[in-house]
Amino acid sequence: MTTVDRSAARTAAQPPGVSRRRLLAAAAAAGAGGLAAGAAGGAFVQESVRDEPAALATVGATRVPFHGVHQAGITTPLQAAGHLAAFDLTPGASPAATRREAAALLRRWSDTAARLTAGEPAAGHDTGIARDAGPSSLTVTFGFGRGLFDRTGLAARRPAALAPLPPFSADALDARRSDGDLWVQIGADDALVAYHALRALIRDAGQAAAVRWQVRGFNRTPGATARPRTARNLMGQVDGTNNPRPTDEDFAARIFVPAGGDPDWMAGGSYAVYRRIRMLLDRWEHLSPARQERVIGRRRSDGAPLSGGPDAQESTPVDLDGRLADGTLAIAGDAHVRVAAPESNGGAAMLRRPFSYDEGLRDDGAPDAGLLFVAWQADPARGFVPVQRKLDRGDGLSRFLSHEASALWAVPGGAAAGEYVGQRLLEG
Amino acid sequence: MTTVDRSAARTAAQPPGVSRRRLLAAAAAAGAGGLAAGAAGGAFVQESVRDEPAALATVGATRVPFHGVHQAGITTPLQAAGHLAAFDLTPGASPAATRREAAALLRRWSDTAARLTAGEPAAGHDTGIARDAGPSSLTVTFGFGRGLFDRTGLAARRPAALAPLPPFSADALDARRSDGDLWVQIGADDALVAYHALRALIRDAGQAAAVRWQVRGFNRTPGATARPRTARNLMGQVDGTNNPRPTDEDFAARIFVPAGGDPDWMAGGSYAVYRRIRMLLDRWEHLSPARQERVIGRRRSDGAPLSGGPDAQESTPVDLDGRLADGTLAIAGDAHVRVAAPESNGGAAMLRRPFSYDEGLRDDGAPDAGLLFVAWQADPARGFVPVQRKLDRGDGLSRFLSHEASALWAVPGGAAAGEYVGQRLLEG
Repeated sequence: MTTVDRSAARTAAQPPGVSRRRLLAAAAAAGAGGLAAGAAGGAFVQESVRDEPAALATVGATRVPFHGVHQAGITTPLQAAGHLAAFDLTPGASPAATRREAAALLRRWSDTAARLTAGEPAAGHDTGIARDAGPSSLTVTFGFGRGLFDRTGLAARRPAALAPLPPFSADALDARRSDGDLWVQIGADDALVAYHALRALIRDAGQAAAVRWQVRGFNRTPGATARPRTARNLMGQVDGTNNPRPTDEDFAARIFVPAGGDPDWMAGGSYAVYRRIRMLLDRWEHLSPARQERVIGRRRSDGAPLSGGPDAQESTPVDLDGRLADGTLAIAGDAHVRVAAPESNGGAAMLRRPFSYDEGLRDDGAPDAGLLFVAWQADPARGFVPVQRKLDRGDGLSRFLSHEASALWAVPGGAAAGEYVGQRLLEG
Repeated sequence: MTTVDRSAARTAAQPPGVSRRRLLAAAAAAGAGGLAAGAAGGAFVQESVRDEPAALATVGATRVPFHGVHQAGITTPLQAAGHLAAFDLTPGASPAATRREAAALLRRWSDTAARLTAGEPAAGHDTGIARDAGPSSLTVTFGFGRGLFDRTGLAARRPAALAPLPPFSADALDARRSDGDLWVQIGADDALVAYHALRALIRDAGQAAAVRWQVRGFNRTPGATARPRTARNLMGQVDGTNNPRPTDEDFAARIFVPAGGDPDWMAGGSYAVYRRIRMLLDRWEHLSPARQERVIGRRRSDGAPLSGGPDAQESTPVDLDGRLADGTLAIAGDAHVRVAAPESNGGAAMLRRPFSYDEGLRDDGAPDAGLLFVAWQADPARGFVPVQRKLDRGDGLSRFLSHEASALWAVPGGAAAGEYVGQRLLEG
């Protein structure tokens, strides 16, 4: 099995996705030259090498290691399919008993995640849903909500950073689809591989925890575009341009809790803010493209800032003071990029890594679709919270959005081989 | 733009998918050899040819022609993402006025479908959701429900084959998610391309028709497996093995209404049965793999029939009389493949072309997931209806399924260039 490490540890010197693209180029060359497909794609490619080019199987063959300093699924390039699911622990006879059950569950989950991300079946009775496919860049990421600490008698070790998010005026939150004791983020470039992982993890939960909510999301399919995979959302906007990059000097400090941080068991971990953000698409699509661009502050076609003139590109820095020929601000006062910009928020930044979602129609006939916003940071008080406070007051985009669910998760560092995620808390 | 015709017209002499795989092999060779990516992928590949191998973009570049004798999306290989949506016509001042509105809508829809499947934006204000991506094998297929004929004063031209499906004992149908005047089936190998088409078609509907229900589905991503793309469903079973193949002598007669058929405006058309079939996955996954295989009659790993012994393959014919060493039937009396087999149903056959779906959890905590079953045939009375009658009485699989929505659509033949789908009915 080809191993392509898409985690932060090995991509610190290059932007996300480069290692993936290099692999694809190499695989295409190997396939066309008639070299052994097994070298690029593993055993499941060899089974039908006669009528399938090796390059085709690279999407399936790409593997993201489960073990490492950080959990996978944070700096991993966006996958085409995903699930977010929250679980509530079943209270045991005592907090200590609940803690033992939680620890056993995290051990089962880590074992299953290690197997599935390597393209192996789950232990015991595997559902077979992923059969025929490779790991397809599967990642499984585990997080802890506030409730876990109360139920397990670990309130004293709960991070201060896990304080409840403040209310925002635009919130229309559904408690049944928010929060939870445990969180699982699944991503894969194949929707059946992702669903397979979800069912395996639900089975592992057994009597120890029950699903509180789950939702599935999607992004662009590998190969559907020749552009590097910046996300495009259901509003038609390029999303994530201003994200911190692993090449940034302060990337690790912004995204990950350092060794020796507080609490110590979170070393190498991160905090994930989840918001289910419904897009009011009927209203949004009623705007002209030019009006849409002014709401965002970027060109719809390529994400270039409106302050950059006709030759600007997506990578052109935003000039918040830039003016048009008529003297007006090129980036409007309430444009989304202005209000969200680090310069407008004391340098606050987070790594946004969303999925789109679509659950059909609401009872009122409006599309139940939008963004499963997931943002990563070392400290939500210096990431999501100040930015969302500012957006909540002054973002022209907020008229087109409804925040319908919310959660904040402490995501521990990655497990070493033989360890399970969260072991340093649950057995510490 | 590379044109790959995946419709029945040109694949009659080869199994579905071969033309696609050949293209992929050719594109991989061209990419590795440094030949012009534009030749394989069109203009959008050339924009970033410097850092993307051409083979990567083939998924996006593959185009399925909209115009033809049959509509696309019937014999087209399964795509990774899809939407099914039903619309109800807005009653006009008279049936004739409603008919004119319906005709104008089908003209707009056909124009949009022709543009989008060619990788072009919609006319007027395009949402931009598909921007950066190629057509990604997008297909759009239109169908007519019973209600359309009443509302438009065309009841006399309604096909006899569009008689309501009979009730089945396992039905638990939700009328709000069933039926409708008009049906749209969208498929694409990129979920954003599929959603883009859905939004464009909803916008086209304007005041003429309103969405009655919509649901999104998924299949395996191109390249996630090296196997030819037989579907695998959320029960982990290979699905569609016994499908009629375009190479079968009687394929066209089974699937398509012939020229000179009744009614004449359906020449080249087909009838689509839609069933939203929820899988009772918690119950199903409780069975051992061996029990699951006996319920189906096929091996879970590769779909080989249990009557074929250890060396059987998926393509091995089912032997309904085959017995095990102990004298018992290899394919149990109530096994799904036995009850569904053409030999058990007077030769009845249909082309099944499903998507899986997952809409999270129901209020009772069970997964709201399963199969968007779509089956194609020249006459439902010699396809779906007799098979489902038999399954309804004797299929061991039915304990694990719940039919929650249903529809039957008359799907007209494909439009020629300059024509729109359904023109022969609406202006005939």
